[in-house]
Amino acid sequence: MREFKGQENGRFVQVPPSDLHRHLGDLLQSADGTDVTFQVDGKTFSAHQSVLAARSPVFKAQLFGPMKDSSDDLIMVDDMEADVFGSLLHFIYTDSLPQMSREGDNEGVAASHLLVAADRYDVQRLKLICEEKLCSHIDTDTVATSLVLAEQHSCHGLKEACLQFLVSPSSLEGMKVSDAYVHLKSSCPSVLKELIARLLPAELKAAKDIVMAI
Amino acid sequence: MREFKGQENGRFVQVPPSDLHRHLGDLLQSADGTDVTFQVDGKTFSAHQSVLAARSPVFKAQLFGPMKDSSDDLIMVDDMEADVFGSLLHFIYTDSLPQMSREGDNEGVAASHLLVAADRYDVQRLKLICEEKLCSHIDTDTVATSLVLAEQHSCHGLKEACLQFLVSPSSLEGMKVSDAYVHLKSSCPSVLKELIARLLPAELKAAKDIVMAI
Repeated sequence: MREFKGQENGRFVQVPPSDLHRHLGDLLQSADGTDVTFQVDGKTFSAHQSVLAARSPVFKAQLFGPMKDSSDDLIMVDDMEADVFGSLLHFIYTDSLPQMSREGDNEGVAASHLLVAADRYDVQRLKLICEEKLCSHIDTDTVATSLVLAEQHSCHGLKEACLQFLVSPSSLEGMKVSDAYVHLKSSCPSVLKELIARLLPAELKAAKDIVMAI
Repeated sequence: MREFKGQENGRFVQVPPSDLHRHLGDLLQSADGTDVTFQVDGKTFSAHQSVLAARSPVFKAQLFGPMKDSSDDLIMVDDMEADVFGSLLHFIYTDSLPQMSREGDNEGVAASHLLVAADRYDVQRLKLICEEKLCSHIDTDTVATSLVLAEQHSCHGLKEACLQFLVSPSSLEGMKVSDAYVHLKSSCPSVLKELIARLLPAELKAAKDIVMAI
């Protein structure tokens, strides 16, 4: 009994890479068999309950949970831009972001809106992708807004990146004259205290601890 | 305005690899929101029409095409083992094969059954994966069966691998005493003619062509 050598097989059959993402993307585009419609900011989006439930615990509870209303074939989504919901759906079906029409600084704005949507529907991987994008857009103009976002949506990586950026005195001074600083001060005072604690030299910190302990 | 360097971001946020396959696998397991049931070889399988339609043009036509019967919530599948249909469903949802319980030579048998199912439902990537597996199991005992399969299901790579294996006289003699050779001769005589044409030396072929042309 003579066998072919395993390594020769690639000569005869080429298996292409996974096409699950593309197939689900095509399903979303085609709208075949959609069984739920969302109304977002005046625009409607049709989708498939099973795919949404597979990808988001929030959609799963909404569509298949005990609170589900069987007449829920039109679901209103408040406080979200239509574009953002469209990007969320694209990610849910394909695990990738749609081509962004906004370039440059606006990519950061788009990422922050999408991060809020990803957190709302508990799409963890999308949330991390948005966090990563925001980390690459940290500057003196954006850092205050990103810190607020990080605090409000429990983004530990983004928060850490912002705090490390602000360890530099020039970055800190830059942030303090940015428009978003007022909002940061009023909405997240605790994160400013955390920042101050980091900025104190170790000796001062030790002295403060001693004073506090007396 | 001071920006963070992009390459530093990986320190703060780690984006995990795509989890679409796992999420859809979990959906199949959980059977949440299934809307179609198949009866196969005495066993029932519940699934989601939208996922099946996204992944198989045959399921798409059956479930969403103009011939669709709205009372089709139970679909009978004939001429297929339950295990094979289960593996097909697993692949449709996850783009990967389930852990095979059969080992060694039986892997080839499992691959041939799954190839037939993949061809029937037009799941091209699964068909190629099965073809590749069968290529790695070609020996004097299996080659006749694989050739029949390749002819009946238009598997060009597998057919080519079998023919190249049989170019060796010892392989050819081995196949001729195998159980499946009788079936090959009766069901696919044309492929044997093709094989003979390959085995003829070039000079003999030229002479035969001249004789045929007279």
